[in-house]
Amino acid sequence: METRSDDLYPTRLERPMSRFERLDPIVHSTGRDRSDGPLSDTDLARYERDGFLVFNQFLDPELVRRFREDLRAYENDESVLHSEGTITEPGKQEIRSIFGIHELSERFDRLTRDPRILDMVHQLLGSDVYIHQSRINYKPGFHGKGFDWHSDFETWHAEDGMPRMRSVSFSIALTDNTPFNGPLMLVPGSHKTYIPCVGRTPEDNYQSSLKKQELGVPSGQDLNREIERHGIQAPTGPAGSLIIFECNTLHGSNANMSPWPRSNLFFVYNSVENKLRQPYCGNKPRPDFLGNRTSTEALTPAWSRDLHKVG
Amino acid sequence: METRSDDLYPTRLERPMSRFERLDPIVHSTGRDRSDGPLSDTDLARYERDGFLVFNQFLDPELVRRFREDLRAYENDESVLHSEGTITEPGKQEIRSIFGIHELSERFDRLTRDPRILDMVHQLLGSDVYIHQSRINYKPGFHGKGFDWHSDFETWHAEDGMPRMRSVSFSIALTDNTPFNGPLMLVPGSHKTYIPCVGRTPEDNYQSSLKKQELGVPSGQDLNREIERHGIQAPTGPAGSLIIFECNTLHGSNANMSPWPRSNLFFVYNSVENKLRQPYCGNKPRPDFLGNRTSTEALTPAWSRDLHKVG
Repeated sequence: METRSDDLYPTRLERPMSRFERLDPIVHSTGRDRSDGPLSDTDLARYERDGFLVFNQFLDPELVRRFREDLRAYENDESVLHSEGTITEPGKQEIRSIFGIHELSERFDRLTRDPRILDMVHQLLGSDVYIHQSRINYKPGFHGKGFDWHSDFETWHAEDGMPRMRSVSFSIALTDNTPFNGPLMLVPGSHKTYIPCVGRTPEDNYQSSLKKQELGVPSGQDLNREIERHGIQAPTGPAGSLIIFECNTLHGSNANMSPWPRSNLFFVYNSVENKLRQPYCGNKPRPDFLGNRTSTEALTPAWSRDLHKVG
Repeated sequence: METRSDDLYPTRLERPMSRFERLDPIVHSTGRDRSDGPLSDTDLARYERDGFLVFNQFLDPELVRRFREDLRAYENDESVLHSEGTITEPGKQEIRSIFGIHELSERFDRLTRDPRILDMVHQLLGSDVYIHQSRINYKPGFHGKGFDWHSDFETWHAEDGMPRMRSVSFSIALTDNTPFNGPLMLVPGSHKTYIPCVGRTPEDNYQSSLKKQELGVPSGQDLNREIERHGIQAPTGPAGSLIIFECNTLHGSNANMSPWPRSNLFFVYNSVENKLRQPYCGNKPRPDFLGNRTSTEALTPAWSRDLHKVG
């Protein structure tokens, strides 16, 4: 496959290619858009250094409880269980992820457009934004499997045609994150380096990669270097906590060894100036529930009564 | 299969049977044998309460280094790699465990008979002792898989014919134990309860169970109850630390998400008054490297120059 002239981040290559420094800013706003908040200078400096931020007790416990109830309702909803956006555990019928959740749930849709959140997103991405992908992740007690180390951007670039690093993930815990229920692990500082990956992408790769990712995973040597250099962090905290992480931050998680299920809300914002093109891996685009190409108009704020309790 | 009259701990059953309180003491010595050390009253009380003890920096770093070198040598030794006592990762040629290590290595043999260790074992088991099983466990960086929750005694009783709870495991870390390289997790207090398991044992079950244990695993309900009640602990510490755990303490471990391999020495002592009978699951005995029936005479102390540096 030939490299396209607009491909600044080559990957899924026939031969290994060296990692290189990212070509995009980490915080995209400038001037007063950057300095006027809601994130403080300290927050922004930390985000630029580490590639992620953690806010404990971001979401009101009552709203957390209602989202958990929604999730339980989905588990018993045949139409959700059998939709293409619902991914089950490898070899099992247990839910691993439900994608497109902001289109299933008005509560979730309003949350993604809450001004408290949108203002942070605008500050980080420096433009209007839309939802690239949304989901609930679920790790049942004892059975929930982990995710190997990866950069989301690498996949979104190769398989969805996201041109630049100008997107960000918000992950809100619906359950306590403990050291034992497979919490998110991140490599602080890894977002500064782009790691091209080796291997041709099969058509419809997502049908297996969402269960277990084999492609778009950095080599052991590259991972080794990043982790030796930067270490690993696994933020733990109560249900309702928020983790914001940059699209190129290496992350993964281990299996859930506890009896306590782990679930979180997960939504990805992309800049309207960074809309998807043809996938750089050369395949046809993935479905909209993974890489949204349809509803890409700028999100408008939606005040949510629930969120007035937040803070 | 009929239950034998000498089977005080039925398991591998056709139908579920309720858990029950263990029938054996936790510390088997009494009187002066108990009170004269080397473990203090506090140590013994903690062992009786939790089912395990942790001593950081037990083994001299130089000796730790030499054991790590031995392990590396074994990895390149075809005769070790292809011996029946060497277990590889599921679907791979990477070493997961080498059993019978005290017969492969004089250094290891002397370590298991060091008076500092043997005196503790005598105090815990209240009699002369012999090695039931020994091994090196190895979890390569990124690839090492975990072990599901289980009680060792359940397997040793069912598949090896160990009649009573009168054995103990010593595990010495050859690498630092971090939260991210798949450290040993234990359920403190779980050793007080015996949990019968359901399911007939196939002949030669060990050939698959040592890669991934499917039988002899407590039900989700039983695990749930134990962990809700007692929680989970995952001791971390530097290379050279020692974990002593009772044969019925529930334990497991997660996958190694770090680049750093994790390895440890592991040896199980059994009381000479608790020698193996016919396996209670009704099958033929497992090989000697898993459940030793041959060299069961009382261990005699062997001073090791290496260990004089310990302390």
